[in-house]
Amino acid sequence: MKNESDFIASGGITSPEGFMAGAVSAGIKYMNRPDLGVLYSEAPCAAAAVFSTNKVKAAPVILSQLRLQDGRARAVVINSGCANACNGKQGMKDAMGMAELAARHVGVAVDDVLVASTGVIGTVLPMERIRKDIPEIRIIADGGHELARAIMTTDTVPKEVAVRAGGFTIGGMAKGSGMIHPNLATMLCFLTTDAVVDADYLGAALKEAVDISLNMVSIDGDDSTNDMVLIMANGKAGGEPVVAGSKRAEVFQEALNKVCIYLTRAIARDGEGATRLIEVNVSGAASLADARIAARTIVSSSLVKAAVHGSDPNWGRVLAAAGRSGAALDADKLYLEIGGICLVKDGAPAPYDNDKVVRHLDGDEVRMDLKLNMGNAAATAWGCDLSEEYVTINSEYTT
Amino acid sequence: MKNESDFIASGGITSPEGFMAGAVSAGIKYMNRPDLGVLYSEAPCAAAAVFSTNKVKAAPVILSQLRLQDGRARAVVINSGCANACNGKQGMKDAMGMAELAARHVGVAVDDVLVASTGVIGTVLPMERIRKDIPEIRIIADGGHELARAIMTTDTVPKEVAVRAGGFTIGGMAKGSGMIHPNLATMLCFLTTDAVVDADYLGAALKEAVDISLNMVSIDGDDSTNDMVLIMANGKAGGEPVVAGSKRAEVFQEALNKVCIYLTRAIARDGEGATRLIEVNVSGAASLADARIAARTIVSSSLVKAAVHGSDPNWGRVLAAAGRSGAALDADKLYLEIGGICLVKDGAPAPYDNDKVVRHLDGDEVRMDLKLNMGNAAATAWGCDLSEEYVTINSEYTT
Repeated sequence: MKNESDFIASGGITSPEGFMAGAVSAGIKYMNRPDLGVLYSEAPCAAAAVFSTNKVKAAPVILSQLRLQDGRARAVVINSGCANACNGKQGMKDAMGMAELAARHVGVAVDDVLVASTGVIGTVLPMERIRKDIPEIRIIADGGHELARAIMTTDTVPKEVAVRAGGFTIGGMAKGSGMIHPNLATMLCFLTTDAVVDADYLGAALKEAVDISLNMVSIDGDDSTNDMVLIMANGKAGGEPVVAGSKRAEVFQEALNKVCIYLTRAIARDGEGATRLIEVNVSGAASLADARIAARTIVSSSLVKAAVHGSDPNWGRVLAAAGRSGAALDADKLYLEIGGICLVKDGAPAPYDNDKVVRHLDGDEVRMDLKLNMGNAAATAWGCDLSEEYVTINSEYTT
Repeated sequence: MKNESDFIASGGITSPEGFMAGAVSAGIKYMNRPDLGVLYSEAPCAAAAVFSTNKVKAAPVILSQLRLQDGRARAVVINSGCANACNGKQGMKDAMGMAELAARHVGVAVDDVLVASTGVIGTVLPMERIRKDIPEIRIIADGGHELARAIMTTDTVPKEVAVRAGGFTIGGMAKGSGMIHPNLATMLCFLTTDAVVDADYLGAALKEAVDISLNMVSIDGDDSTNDMVLIMANGKAGGEPVVAGSKRAEVFQEALNKVCIYLTRAIARDGEGATRLIEVNVSGAASLADARIAARTIVSSSLVKAAVHGSDPNWGRVLAAAGRSGAALDADKLYLEIGGICLVKDGAPAPYDNDKVVRHLDGDEVRMDLKLNMGNAAATAWGCDLSEEYVTINSEYTT
């Protein structure tokens, strides 16, 4: 399919029609940074989400899961600085309290308000401040940028994007799975669209997009108690509804994939302590599951990540990671390129220009292409290098 | 069962009767360090091994697997500095060549000689030096210590142990799965015993010991192309044969477990860049598989490892790791102790003395006890903290 979608300059979650947002500094995080905000839609939305599969789930995740069972939402209240996880009954009470405050502030039914939190586990939310500050949030038409800043934790830059395609817009923002300082890798992603989207289809489209994007990023292999990817479609752009199997669905899916892959790459590039984005393409796999697990295992390998950090063309580590991934492979059929340069053919070293490979590894983006020569399935995974700084960030904390 | 086995001071693989060993510096590694050696038994041995499950297997692993099909071995030739992996046909030719040189040197049939290598992937063995140096190896009665040094890579200390029990001795040596500098995590472990052991039983006993020891250690989650755990039993101690289901088998198993756990802890303690040994005990699991995966996932978590490095009582990371491990659990039933101090009860924070926990985390050995309260299964896993030095070791290489 031709490229029918375009990036919007400085776009974000309030780029689609009818979405507004705002944030304040409630002192949950530290210093005077924004850490509490609301995303709001003028019109009712079809909504769908993908949540953490961790069996230890934060209260806001459990609450939002319940509230999304009707496939509808109008607003989300989000905080950083406190995960509101492992807080027992108090946690659920506070999550519900936050939602109620936000519902009152924007004037919608509390059942249509979702909650997301990210931050330290096992500390309770400062509900007094939140009670005081939610009414102070100025919900404005271009408030997406402020909200994108408010959900940041150890992220060094906000992650926002918007794409226009076929008469509608999809916007998105995310915070990285570089772990929140000082606690857990939490990935939050919020997507908005003014397209008219069938509620059932919306969930399927989100799952497809997340499977090839956010589910293929690894910073350190630690899934969080608070992960959440949410999409809200308010229909403000009008036109034919996007339903499964339609031409419009193809356009919508392509644009949604584009938004999600953009945010995924932004997350990987901004992994804690990261100095490089790593993209691993595995092709020629016997099955899609094989391609996915091989790509993810390579990009998650501490040894591969450390080698990239040192600009070391250490291809043995790449092959060994593939070998232990569980993907069906024959060591004698492996073919590997780094930065487009062939290092391994038929499972044995190929002569290559070492300086050229090192120069590629020295760059901002490192690309590895591994061909298994077992079949036709392919997958791409993203990650980042492993630096001394990652360890420093994650070992300095309360003490 | 009572403790019927005792550690032998300065024991090693040549502590059991009839085992001899020796090593030389063949210049495979670097500098003038020993890197090539032979383990030899005066009498034929029943032998069994557990090999790497990585689908990319080094030539010596493939060769040794084949040669062990008859359950017999007499000698092993081992080198460090070169993994002889991903070398195509040349690799197998060289592995067979090494075995033949060793067979000639010690005067046994080539079919009874196994091969093990550890080091850089994709470089070929310097066969000329090996051909010259194998005949120079002095095989002596207490040569175990020298051989234990020769198999070291990034290990900072040799890992040796011997235990005497019920009229026989079991000796062992290992090299760590801290990755070889500069390449791959390879764990090699060689066990010897002068007990008379039934060949079939020997394999089962080894599997049982490895399952609760070497299979429960994680330095960085990267399995190698060259991993191998070998046991040889030459029967020189005489007496009743150790057969499955016998009282003697209980004594043998207990001693073997002890040797393997000792070496496992030594490997974890000496992980690359490690400053602490971490022991994670998971109990109250619904199944043994659950207990094992939860313990392994916690001890492998980069976030948990980095927190320990920073002496940070970051229990949220421990719970989150358990939650994503796949083990059946109920977040509200979790109970966690660090260093014997309760931090979490019924899934929520318990009041604790922070200084006391930090003091424990500052020590050489960190112990975590997680109770799932789902059943009666338990498992222990070992690992080490994640330090900046780990990254430095693994990113500095050819360049």
